[in-house]
Amino acid sequence: MRQRNVKNQDEILSSFDRYVQNPESLKGKWHGGFKEVHLEIGIGKGQFIYELAKKNPDILYVGIELNKGVISLASKKILRKEQEEAIHVANLKLFSFDAADLDKVFTEGEVDKIYLNFSDPWPKKKHAKRRLTSKTFLDKYRLILKKDGIIEQKTDNMGLFEFSILSFNENNLLMEDISLNVYADIANGKILDNIPTEYEEKFRDKGPIYKMIAKFRSDV
Amino acid sequence: MRQRNVKNQDEILSSFDRYVQNPESLKGKWHGGFKEVHLEIGIGKGQFIYELAKKNPDILYVGIELNKGVISLASKKILRKEQEEAIHVANLKLFSFDAADLDKVFTEGEVDKIYLNFSDPWPKKKHAKRRLTSKTFLDKYRLILKKDGIIEQKTDNMGLFEFSILSFNENNLLMEDISLNVYADIANGKILDNIPTEYEEKFRDKGPIYKMIAKFRSDV
Repeated sequence: MRQRNVKNQDEILSSFDRYVQNPESLKGKWHGGFKEVHLEIGIGKGQFIYELAKKNPDILYVGIELNKGVISLASKKILRKEQEEAIHVANLKLFSFDAADLDKVFTEGEVDKIYLNFSDPWPKKKHAKRRLTSKTFLDKYRLILKKDGIIEQKTDNMGLFEFSILSFNENNLLMEDISLNVYADIANGKILDNIPTEYEEKFRDKGPIYKMIAKFRSDV
Repeated sequence: MRQRNVKNQDEILSSFDRYVQNPESLKGKWHGGFKEVHLEIGIGKGQFIYELAKKNPDILYVGIELNKGVISLASKKILRKEQEEAIHVANLKLFSFDAADLDKVFTEGEVDKIYLNFSDPWPKKKHAKRRLTSKTFLDKYRLILKKDGIIEQKTDNMGLFEFSILSFNENNLLMEDISLNVYADIANGKILDNIPTEYEEKFRDKGPIYKMIAKFRSDV
């Protein structure tokens, strides 16, 4: 999601009870009473992580975005939804952070699963290193993911998905499942559960949505 | 391509000067004076291998099909084209053979490149082992391919391509390049040369054509 500033973003975030001001201080302590810790890198408007958190109250969902403005909008949306639904989703934490520094926030093996949804494709070749599935980022994920921890990616960007397949393969991830057309696979019963992001709802008819489930190999 | 019997197929083949009756007898001798030996598994109607052979006279193109009827039709088509074009493509050999026994025909490292074009998808899970990118076949390809030898696959079958990606990844192939839409990549200049098969010409407008270029890792 493109960066943008939002008026009063700091106020909004300081009033959102699940916004983490100093995530480094929680390093090694994220699990708390939760069974697992799942991380979404790039939460966009927040629907995906909110719906997942509602569905799985025993898992802590941590969502990050580089841009505070984006998180402030997601926070507002989450509060509005909670009001409508008369609930409070406690197993959710958001903070503004650069994914390149994830090892400053999570200790080794502290994360059980990573979601990458419709990440910025950085289409220019000279920006390839900024893609969230490039080697630099994969090396960070490897550090913070537990053994056999999963990376799950969805995107509608063909170039990014091609890049991700090659990068996962080159960097010794084991691909466990792949879909080259999520909505075709939902229709034919191969995919049984899918939580769409806001972006996905908007663009799902424009072309295929791709999905990958992969983990780091323990045998190499 | 589905099996079918063709009237007089044996006659047709025995009159085609590049049909190899006893391919086992050429084991270890395929290179002859040629720079490289490229193998197409499943030649269909033969256009792909014929056009490639015309383009690269210093490479020997070997094409196999399980079904003699299919090869007899391809042979007839090749002869007709050669007559039209008033040429004789000498660097081409065809024979009827089961890809599962390729190591009976080629010695270690004797093949420089393998093409898999629009192979039978065998969509039922119980038939997965028959797919030409399943482990059994990959193990044969590994035996006959030279170090850094390439496997190039094209298909329009989403399920087969998904399976191939997972299988290449699991069986330690290094994916060098991938296209999730060959004709989009031809249009945007990413793919500069593409020789279509007859099947491809017929179905290229029905949905994406997928392409993969991979080789066996030498580091594992």
